[in-house]
Amino acid sequence: MAIQTRTIAYQHAGLTYEGLLAWDDTASGPRPGVAVAHTWAGRSEFEDGKAIELAEHGYVAFALDMFGKGVRGEGAEQCQGLIAPLLADRALLQDLVNLGVGVMSEQAEVDASCVAAMGYCFGGLTVLDLARSGAMVRGVVSFHGLFNAPGNTEGTRIEAKVLCLHGYDDPMATPEDLLALAQELTAAGADWQVHAYGNTLHAFTNPQANDPGFGALYSAAADRRSSEALYNFLEEVLA
Amino acid sequence: MAIQTRTIAYQHAGLTYEGLLAWDDTASGPRPGVAVAHTWAGRSEFEDGKAIELAEHGYVAFALDMFGKGVRGEGAEQCQGLIAPLLADRALLQDLVNLGVGVMSEQAEVDASCVAAMGYCFGGLTVLDLARSGAMVRGVVSFHGLFNAPGNTEGTRIEAKVLCLHGYDDPMATPEDLLALAQELTAAGADWQVHAYGNTLHAFTNPQANDPGFGALYSAAADRRSSEALYNFLEEVLA
Repeated sequence: MAIQTRTIAYQHAGLTYEGLLAWDDTASGPRPGVAVAHTWAGRSEFEDGKAIELAEHGYVAFALDMFGKGVRGEGAEQCQGLIAPLLADRALLQDLVNLGVGVMSEQAEVDASCVAAMGYCFGGLTVLDLARSGAMVRGVVSFHGLFNAPGNTEGTRIEAKVLCLHGYDDPMATPEDLLALAQELTAAGADWQVHAYGNTLHAFTNPQANDPGFGALYSAAADRRSSEALYNFLEEVLA
Repeated sequence: MAIQTRTIAYQHAGLTYEGLLAWDDTASGPRPGVAVAHTWAGRSEFEDGKAIELAEHGYVAFALDMFGKGVRGEGAEQCQGLIAPLLADRALLQDLVNLGVGVMSEQAEVDASCVAAMGYCFGGLTVLDLARSGAMVRGVVSFHGLFNAPGNTEGTRIEAKVLCLHGYDDPMATPEDLLALAQELTAAGADWQVHAYGNTLHAFTNPQANDPGFGALYSAAADRRSSEALYNFLEEVLA
């Protein structure tokens, strides 16, 4: 097995974005594709590492870029500033994630009929919005994602299967938000699941997360359980 | 591999109960044990079949009896009549399930230090009550179980890891019940998870369930997903 990577630049509204493709070059023929949407800090080693891990599992993975080439946030204030324009314009967010998934699907290594997406935190919201936009992806997986509805997709049927991996004590996605999401996904006809982990905060997959006062803390148990759930789900939807 | 079974009679308050033990006699030495708690209809081929399936996965399983030897319900009214005394006396319910798990643990085939329990519908409530009673089992798994708190276990720490596999549209366990359960399990210090399946009713694991008006309907997807979650969980807690 030999994992390969290459960066891929793509354009939107005059801006350049840069994702990272990862695949196993010993695989024969096109393989199912999995897009990875980043946190509010922008595409980083974390998401690139997840893409490589997916490639080790036999998928072709693409770490998306929602901010623009080289744009990264440091600290909560800067990160909040990066996501604010996309939270304020969910149609733009939806366009960008659909574009990124489309770029992945065009790659020779990818079986374009067999594509899913996953994301972390802001990236969880991003892939939920991909599903909400009616995209014909097989499935989306949100890890400690934000749940709030975009407001521009009511009446659109969700074709993708949806899996939300959720820390129940995440202050950014409260129990009330969870109930609202369940109602929204049901109304949109989605095949959905939420795995709620007790005593678990935001950012539970990130070994660097260590700010319980802010609501973010790594959990080895939730990290392991959510990873198992991810690969079970991908096996189901990308078979 | 050769799956063996034997019935085991046990006594409580002058009544005889009869469970079914299932194991693989090609396994060497004591194996982890998994008790299976029945629905409101009493111990049936369904639970015995689950015990045999667990034995095929390398566990020693024991289909419990909460009603008494040969006592079975047919139809909703009769079944309701069977569970009513136990719902009205949760201490009795807790005694009976602890007794049954103890009987399993005493069997030569079982590693008594490595025991879990699972159950369906009323049996889901039963294994939640086992955990609530502070039993030193490694984990409990509720399939479309009832959630309502017993009222006699406040202040008792839950030692068992808890996994609830839940149809989100189950009218017997509403979203409000789910929030209350989450609060209760958190307060009791439990390591807990709930997997909620959208568009899924009560009794989703039972291929015979076909009464959506009553809120009970088989779901092949939720059955498969919950089975995967069960075996992942058992692998985690009984390792």
